[in-house]
Amino acid sequence: MKVLVTGAGGFIGSRLVDLLVSRGRIGAQAVTGLALADQRLPLVPKGAVALEGELGSPEALTRVASFGPDVIFHLAAMPGGAAEADYALGRRVNLDMTLALFETLACRERPPVVVYASTIAVYGTALPDLVSDATPLRPPLTYGAHKLVCEILLADFTRRGLLDGRSLRLPGIVARPRAPAGLASAFMSDLLHALAAGERYICPVGPEATAWWMSAWRCADNMLHGAAMNVSNADPGRAWTLPVLRLSIAQIVNTLATLYGDDRRELVTYEPKPQLEAVFGRYPVLDDGAARALGLSDDGTPEALVRRALETHRE
Amino acid sequence: MKVLVTGAGGFIGSRLVDLLVSRGRIGAQAVTGLALADQRLPLVPKGAVALEGELGSPEALTRVASFGPDVIFHLAAMPGGAAEADYALGRRVNLDMTLALFETLACRERPPVVVYASTIAVYGTALPDLVSDATPLRPPLTYGAHKLVCEILLADFTRRGLLDGRSLRLPGIVARPRAPAGLASAFMSDLLHALAAGERYICPVGPEATAWWMSAWRCADNMLHGAAMNVSNADPGRAWTLPVLRLSIAQIVNTLATLYGDDRRELVTYEPKPQLEAVFGRYPVLDDGAARALGLSDDGTPEALVRRALETHRE
Repeated sequence: MKVLVTGAGGFIGSRLVDLLVSRGRIGAQAVTGLALADQRLPLVPKGAVALEGELGSPEALTRVASFGPDVIFHLAAMPGGAAEADYALGRRVNLDMTLALFETLACRERPPVVVYASTIAVYGTALPDLVSDATPLRPPLTYGAHKLVCEILLADFTRRGLLDGRSLRLPGIVARPRAPAGLASAFMSDLLHALAAGERYICPVGPEATAWWMSAWRCADNMLHGAAMNVSNADPGRAWTLPVLRLSIAQIVNTLATLYGDDRRELVTYEPKPQLEAVFGRYPVLDDGAARALGLSDDGTPEALVRRALETHRE
Repeated sequence: MKVLVTGAGGFIGSRLVDLLVSRGRIGAQAVTGLALADQRLPLVPKGAVALEGELGSPEALTRVASFGPDVIFHLAAMPGGAAEADYALGRRVNLDMTLALFETLACRERPPVVVYASTIAVYGTALPDLVSDATPLRPPLTYGAHKLVCEILLADFTRRGLLDGRSLRLPGIVARPRAPAGLASAFMSDLLHALAAGERYICPVGPEATAWWMSAWRCADNMLHGAAMNVSNADPGRAWTLPVLRLSIAQIVNTLATLYGDDRRELVTYEPKPQLEAVFGRYPVLDDGAARALGLSDDGTPEALVRRALETHRE
């Protein structure tokens, strides 16, 4: 099968490409062709097709169509903070480009599998004690609104028999590089980097703030599984929030102290920003039964999460 | 206040314009300017601005911006059956045009009120016994998917303080003219027309099929109320399914027999089409408490519904 990865040069995309190349298969099927799309692609595996530049351009979409992928991992996106600051660019990247890609890929004879990287930012800020399929979706950022819109559009292409869509809602993925990336939830990664390196860290949410955590490697693994899993009897919404470890900042700090030494605790000072904490620090319990039944999974333990999050190479 | 009505030449739009002109106000505020937009406008009230042609064109949007409406009723849409048959045109009308309109109207200083005509087609086909805010939305047609997408986009513009959105989900509105309009639920209106006129009717759903009904006049009234109602503390999703009379086809036939004579019963033959019945004949009980609390309302009784549905002039 031929595979296209968009956002292939990014934090999760590059790990996904790494896994694809090393395993050479998705489920039982061998990968016979690989195309990578991104604004820039610093590393392109031997034999892979490189699609650099604006993915939404007619030229790029023509190249996608002529490559003819059987499986597409669509990760290219503008992050939440940046999209909130620049509506026009956010719309172009997170909405227009994604819809143009779906329309380009649509094929009635052999609908390609589309694994779409959605986000827990589709939920709102005043969540109930248990988040489930019955929880109304009230995105608190334009980023989340556009992701939710694309979930709905992908489900509609799937219903019409033109794509085989699987939207996976990604939680806070760690540990991103420390460079500013326009990501409002960057503090989750920064905390890990700082304490692992033995540096002081001013945390913008309190110790009791709870978030949904996943390592980038486990996330890439889930994306791969998302393409292989059997969803023929699945909910027509075709969207699953990935199973998560729900951990407080205090639990993360304790885990870092266990792994790197008790002195790590003293490195953290808390200066909670109420607005940030409302969006990123109030995640309740998630009913992820349907996602787990399909074989999607979390990192297992806080220790495994932190270790894997700070690995730069393949687990 | 200046008011714009899109789809003003249509079935509901023309009644809304009728009410706007005769009442001359929305809530406590006088209507000081009126603009009507539609492909064609057979009737334009004296003093009203007429915007004929493609609403999504840059020229039309410039004219909308220079009119500067305080309240917009956005009803222009391509109906469900037609949109399902022509994806590209459905996308242009039901998605692109609506988003372009929202972007044109967006204003931080004085966010205009946008009453958006959404639809119960945002729900799916396998509904629970009670439909509420906890019911996952699984649109069974591209029309419903695009309407849901625009609800989400309108809620996002509202959150950002650029519009003051109110999406009202319209149930089966009766009685539409008998001309073919690409509307998959046309049978609801055709049944009323046929039996009122004493004609035979072959019903494509069975007598036990249940639907959510509303007369066009009550619908127009609810749209007007939607602009005036206070939603400052409302759910950030800003979408309400209008309160409905949930009636079976048998109840409608009984009501017609009461109003027009017992012989009407014998005019109906049932030839249920399973697919049509699955989409339009399985509507369960609706929890419309939040909508009623805001002052939105149904037709009251089946008799009032049928009488009002068959009135061509203002109630």
